Amino acid sequence: MSSIICFTSDFGLDDTWVGICHAVILSACDSARIVDLSHGIRPYDVRKGAAVAAAGVYQLPGAIHLVVVDPGVGGPRRDLSIETVEGTRLVGPDNGILLPAAGRSGGIARAVALSTGRGIEPSPTFRARDVLAPAAAALACGARVTDLGDEVDASGLVAAPFGECRREESYVYGEVLEADRFGSVRVNVPAEQVDELGLRAERLEVGLGHNTLSVPFGQTFSDVGEGEPVVLMDSSGWLTLSINQGSALDRYGVEIGTHVRLRAL
Amino acid sequence: MSSIICFTSDFGLDDTWVGICHAVILSACDSARIVDLSHGIRPYDVRKGAAVAAAGVYQLPGAIHLVVVDPGVGGPRRDLSIETVEGTRLVGPDNGILLPAAGRSGGIARAVALSTGRGIEPSPTFRARDVLAPAAAALACGARVTDLGDEVDASGLVAAPFGECRREESYVYGEVLEADRFGSVRVNVPAEQVDELGLRAERLEVGLGHNTLSVPFGQTFSDVGEGEPVVLMDSSGWLTLSINQGSALDRYGVEIGTHVRLRAL
Amino acid sequence: MSSIICFTSDFGLDDTWVGICHAVILSACDSARIVDLSHGIRPYDVRKGAAVAAAGVYQLPGAIHLVVVDPGVGGPRRDLSIETVEGTRLVGPDNGILLPAAGRSGGIARAVALSTGRGIEPSPTFRARDVLAPAAAALACGARVTDLGDEVDASGLVAAPFGECRREESYVYGEVLEADRFGSVRVNVPAEQVDELGLRAERLEVGLGHNTLSVPFGQTFSDVGEGEPVVLMDSSGWLTLSINQGSALDRYGVEIGTHVRLRAL
Repeated sequence: MSSIICFTSDFGLDDTWVGICHAVILSACDSARIVDLSHGIRPYDVRKGAAVAAAGVYQLPGAIHLVVVDPGVGGPRRDLSIETVEGTRLVGPDNGILLPAAGRSGGIARAVALSTGRGIEPSPTFRARDVLAPAAAALACGARVTDLGDEVDASGLVAAPFGECRREESYVYGEVLEADRFGSVRVNVPAEQVDELGLRAERLEVGLGHNTLSVPFGQTFSDVGEGEPVVLMDSSGWLTLSINQGSALDRYGVEIGTHVRLRAL
Repeated sequence: MSSIICFTSDFGLDDTWVGICHAVILSACDSARIVDLSHGIRPYDVRKGAAVAAAGVYQLPGAIHLVVVDPGVGGPRRDLSIETVEGTRLVGPDNGILLPAAGRSGGIARAVALSTGRGIEPSPTFRARDVLAPAAAALACGARVTDLGDEVDASGLVAAPFGECRREESYVYGEVLEADRFGSVRVNVPAEQVDELGLRAERLEVGLGHNTLSVPFGQTFSDVGEGEPVVLMDSSGWLTLSINQGSALDRYGVEIGTHVRLRAL
Repeated sequence: MSSIICFTSDFGLDDTWVGICHAVILSACDSARIVDLSHGIRPYDVRKGAAVAAAGVYQLPGAIHLVVVDPGVGGPRRDLSIETVEGTRLVGPDNGILLPAAGRSGGIARAVALSTGRGIEPSPTFRARDVLAPAAAALACGARVTDLGDEVDASGLVAAPFGECRREESYVYGEVLEADRFGSVRVNVPAEQVDELGLRAERLEVGLGHNTLSVPFGQTFSDVGEGEPVVLMDSSGWLTLSINQGSALDRYGVEIGTHVRLRAL
């Protein structure tokens, strides 16, 4: 899977940017294969981009992840490539968008600020085409992260757009990261931490804003009756609140960033 | 075309599921090439998924068709692969979604319940990633349908989400299957049955709910004036009611499932 | 990049047409690689299709550009392939959609009316599948434009859906071509003509309908404060009016086709 590039952005599919980046990658690295994880991130929504990228890395650790939500394009922010402790490679702007993905992959092993010195002046409005996509293509064709620029101190990177959940006594406090097209709501509790957070239980208390629910912790949507809520670990690896064949987003009026309080029952 | 996989689902393009399935397929079968027929099926709309898959098989009989609209994912329903009498191969859940496509391809020659025993426990919320896409990839790389699991009795499969049209004296009775982005409305009358159904004529009487129209049976939209209705066999192979440069869906207030009554004039 | 096909249409992604064309191309030319520039053109919007195709040619002159917005499909209009003076190859209907792209690539060197005589009767509702996509595939696999049909007189082609901007004394008069998902508004002033049109300046007067604005001419969005307007040459190569992290489309209530008046300040 080393030549697969997973591409996530807020470019949408209607305005040529995604296709142009595909062409740039395919021209630079014949063996690269590109899969589009999502280009439907709301414009400038670094938080959602970071949540989606982390779900991508969780499922495809062997791929190269190109992640572009970039309100500061062309300004002083840096372009980055990160190699994680578990070996996943990430490419994107230095605005925090890569950090939750890196965190789920063991943390940052090394980070470089991408060099742009190849004779072409990159477009200040489209560094994805001229700097980020070429870096992903180079990795797909065998370059190492450290070939792409000078190493930078990981502690100096712009912070992630959302924090990690935290445990206090029997409660875990987190926040809503995103909702999917089926209305399932994802929370910043990673699958790999369910046990240590004390959340392995048959039912969870789920506090969402002013509501407090008691919800079964299941394996899949149909573990509960149609229209009933269920908490599960979905394929994203984020703890997820769903309604079987319905929308938890609509039912509970959740917004992105809503505080979530969880407790094993 | 044997290594082309046509992928249809209700996943949307914003939530990573489609891209993850692409990556799984490309990793499992290097020579597979994936084309996305539609991922815009409304969530859980097995009827539309079945209509779209049948149109795909009609146009690309040599491809492998992966079709996923799966409200019961993770529950007791089976995962299937079907080989049709005319040799097309289909992969999807046992909820009826594959049957209209199989019907248009000569019927079912054999059906197998996909085995999942390869050492990985499939995610109960994402069997497309862990069972269905790998099966399509295996077919693309040379496996036979019968290599993928145990044969099952075709008569025991879950029924199709819509029936076949039927002729009674001079009338043909059917239903609306779907509408496309141009507002053309497709009916469950297959191109290959127009003659035997007695519908080969210059004009058709079209009864749609309480309306009865007299519409020319043409070859293309511009056979009639701008804003005029026309019945034709469009590329889907389903009988289609269109307005030249307009929307039949809006004009006639049709809903999916509306009864349709047709007669040669 | 000679085997890359850039595909633009008003097909949307929900109705199988795009995927079917991909399959046709991949089956006809194994080495072709397809990138989707946009399939979100509003149905029948030849103007937007032409603007998008020209932006594609500006960025990817070495690719083959397949452009399909085709209200007259199946009628008497011709199918074309054009080779430009600068060597770019275009495929699409003879309704003007290819001409702005050709104009930005040095003009038309030769144009052919695509022959359909290969034994299959093309579907009158889907010539993209049966005539245009196969022509693009043939070019990707080494055919020359003149192999695809008989040459036609370029002066007899249907005119472009929008004209070129024109200079009168210190003013340049143009029109709004399109807006992108971030609300940036593109005008028919090509990057390559900014100097000769006398628009190289630190600020521009921008007349949009009844409004007259004074706007800095920058390099990127973040050259101005958040919420401030900026004129720039974006990656499309069309002069663009943007708001840093906001929407010029919403702010100024612009419509496609609105007259634009520009002057260096």
